[in-house]
Amino acid sequence: MEHLAQILTQLFVLLLAAKLGDELFKRLRQPPLVGEILGGALVGPAVLGWYTVNPETTLFAEIGVVLLLFQVGVETRLADLLRVGGTAARVGALGVLVPLGAGFGIGRLLGLDAAGSVFMGAALTATSVGITSRALGAMGALASRPGRVILGAAIIDDVLAMLILAVAVGLASGEVSVLRIGLLLVMAAAFIGVTVLAGTGILRRHRSLLTIPHFAETPFLPGMILMLGLAALAAWIGLAAIIGAFLAGMVVGESAERDALEEEVGPVAAFFTPFFFGSIGAQIDLAGLASLSTLGLLVAVTLAAVAAKFVGAVGGAWSLPRSERVLIGWGMVPRGEVGIVVAGLGISAGAISGSLYSVVVGMAVATTLLVPPLLPRLVRGTASAPGRAPVNDL
Amino acid sequence: MEHLAQILTQLFVLLLAAKLGDELFKRLRQPPLVGEILGGALVGPAVLGWYTVNPETTLFAEIGVVLLLFQVGVETRLADLLRVGGTAARVGALGVLVPLGAGFGIGRLLGLDAAGSVFMGAALTATSVGITSRALGAMGALASRPGRVILGAAIIDDVLAMLILAVAVGLASGEVSVLRIGLLLVMAAAFIGVTVLAGTGILRRHRSLLTIPHFAETPFLPGMILMLGLAALAAWIGLAAIIGAFLAGMVVGESAERDALEEEVGPVAAFFTPFFFGSIGAQIDLAGLASLSTLGLLVAVTLAAVAAKFVGAVGGAWSLPRSERVLIGWGMVPRGEVGIVVAGLGISAGAISGSLYSVVVGMAVATTLLVPPLLPRLVRGTASAPGRAPVNDL
Repeated sequence: MEHLAQILTQLFVLLLAAKLGDELFKRLRQPPLVGEILGGALVGPAVLGWYTVNPETTLFAEIGVVLLLFQVGVETRLADLLRVGGTAARVGALGVLVPLGAGFGIGRLLGLDAAGSVFMGAALTATSVGITSRALGAMGALASRPGRVILGAAIIDDVLAMLILAVAVGLASGEVSVLRIGLLLVMAAAFIGVTVLAGTGILRRHRSLLTIPHFAETPFLPGMILMLGLAALAAWIGLAAIIGAFLAGMVVGESAERDALEEEVGPVAAFFTPFFFGSIGAQIDLAGLASLSTLGLLVAVTLAAVAAKFVGAVGGAWSLPRSERVLIGWGMVPRGEVGIVVAGLGISAGAISGSLYSVVVGMAVATTLLVPPLLPRLVRGTASAPGRAPVNDL
Repeated sequence: MEHLAQILTQLFVLLLAAKLGDELFKRLRQPPLVGEILGGALVGPAVLGWYTVNPETTLFAEIGVVLLLFQVGVETRLADLLRVGGTAARVGALGVLVPLGAGFGIGRLLGLDAAGSVFMGAALTATSVGITSRALGAMGALASRPGRVILGAAIIDDVLAMLILAVAVGLASGEVSVLRIGLLLVMAAAFIGVTVLAGTGILRRHRSLLTIPHFAETPFLPGMILMLGLAALAAWIGLAAIIGAFLAGMVVGESAERDALEEEVGPVAAFFTPFFFGSIGAQIDLAGLASLSTLGLLVAVTLAAVAAKFVGAVGGAWSLPRSERVLIGWGMVPRGEVGIVVAGLGISAGAISGSLYSVVVGMAVATTLLVPPLLPRLVRGTASAPGRAPVNDL
């Protein structure tokens, strides 16, 4: 009973804080998303300490971002993604390689060994697509060409980040198996390819397939089951769970009853996602950043993370108009939960120190907070830009 | 990553099994609720072992029943409850006292000490209102007079059960503090009274209060925050969390935007409640019931639990027509998760043995499975009964 009371209290505190942050920022005409994160930071261990990170609320946060990407997937059509496939692949690849190099270089400068340096590279690499897609979605800009490039690039990005992480873990344990890494790549590619092609193919041929069960009047519950299943499968392979959730969303988004589905997923996502944004804020570790040298390092690492991702992604999008390139580059900057997870793995593998962990977490939160305020202006910039005709698309 | 993969897999397995059970029972024209429970039993440790009880899925189950009672609360008006208040109080009181006596007697016959016997009494006492309200809700019979009596009685029932549990825990630790138990009673009464009267009073005067925040277009998110807060508060006091959730639902149900609220709570509850029903099934411990003597004891305890609750509740409802009395008596029979929680407390206090724990859990599941199949006939019986005019009500 007392355990349940504690958990319910933690959920209450985090949800309330995130929504009050949302409220305050909406009233100040600032990005509500940033308000939710700062609300979490306020009640988290760094300031008030009313909320402490625990397995149950962490699960709510994870389900929150899983649902967020599921929702984005429902709104995304495969054909639209494939139409920007080439650009997305280039943005994903260059957006990974440049930060990887920067992170590795920083690691070397700090005197880390090869494993630690690759961990730093991996932490600077991983884009948190949740932040950008929520912010773009709120502006109705997810279906725009830059929005689709960001989504596609985030998938490429995650596959590459997984491989880099495998190298980092291998280096830390003393052996890098090329066979294992090749196998990972094949499995990830097969998972994504088979899920998307077979899934959307079947749904497009039988568009009311998901409402055949008697328990389902809309595709909502079958969709949630598929979401959990594919998210689990993605996580087992070593991909982010959100990739599986996004693919599940794309598949069930082909249903004839898509409107009913969106209407029912909406409240569930609205309930869960504040836990995700709030708990990102709650990760901030002010005590770990207390010394002037760590703070300086935080600023340097954050600047490097922003610059490297921006330069890489903008470079990958060379074929697009300038305003879209800038939006894409900026949209790939948030590291969010992915950077935090990588840093956690690095510390448990013994490859990076506790204070460096605090720096990486601080960088992940800082890059996440920087992005939403500028997005509206960049989105407006693309609308007025002399881009190519939207029919031709790329 | 691997931990997340495991949790997602467990959630996937339990949700899929519960909904497949639902599907099968709907096709067989049997109560889908029973199908969900048996689906959970099938994948649970007793049969396939694909799903094992763990803190994270347990939380989903708890949130499931919390949401279920919140939803019931939204549909329940305080005035309607108060109109059947006298009957509900008598049903609650007698429906607690008779099973308490029966459980205590069984404990004595089995040679338990006073603490163990009171635990047995408490386990036989606690009604799981979730089961009945879901089943009645599916028949549209929650707002009927017997439905309202059951809801009201369940609140009284839970307050009394909490006091009995306090006595049991006190006996097991060697001291029963009358002051502490009196304080509990006062706190519970104050919590319920203040929440309901102040809450509904404020909402009835400012019917759009919950949509004043900019983050809320409907009362949904403010309602969920209140639900978590009051559920936590109820659990801290020692009441079931679902009582707090039910009260929160009654309060926000006074909103002008109640329809929008119900529409948004629906999908969230539809997603969470299968975890509750499925995990009740997954609690079944066949190994613990393997011997013939334990099985015999299970049958005896289950019969006593059914008979005692039925007799007590029917007795309390003496002023109502016979068909309504029978429906009320039968509707109070399920012990569900409450009996399981009490048995768990008993075992951790050292007052009951492991095999008796399995028996109590088996009883809780059995009483839960017995109820839904008969309910439709009993509900139809009340509709045709020569009851008093619904305007006069009691």
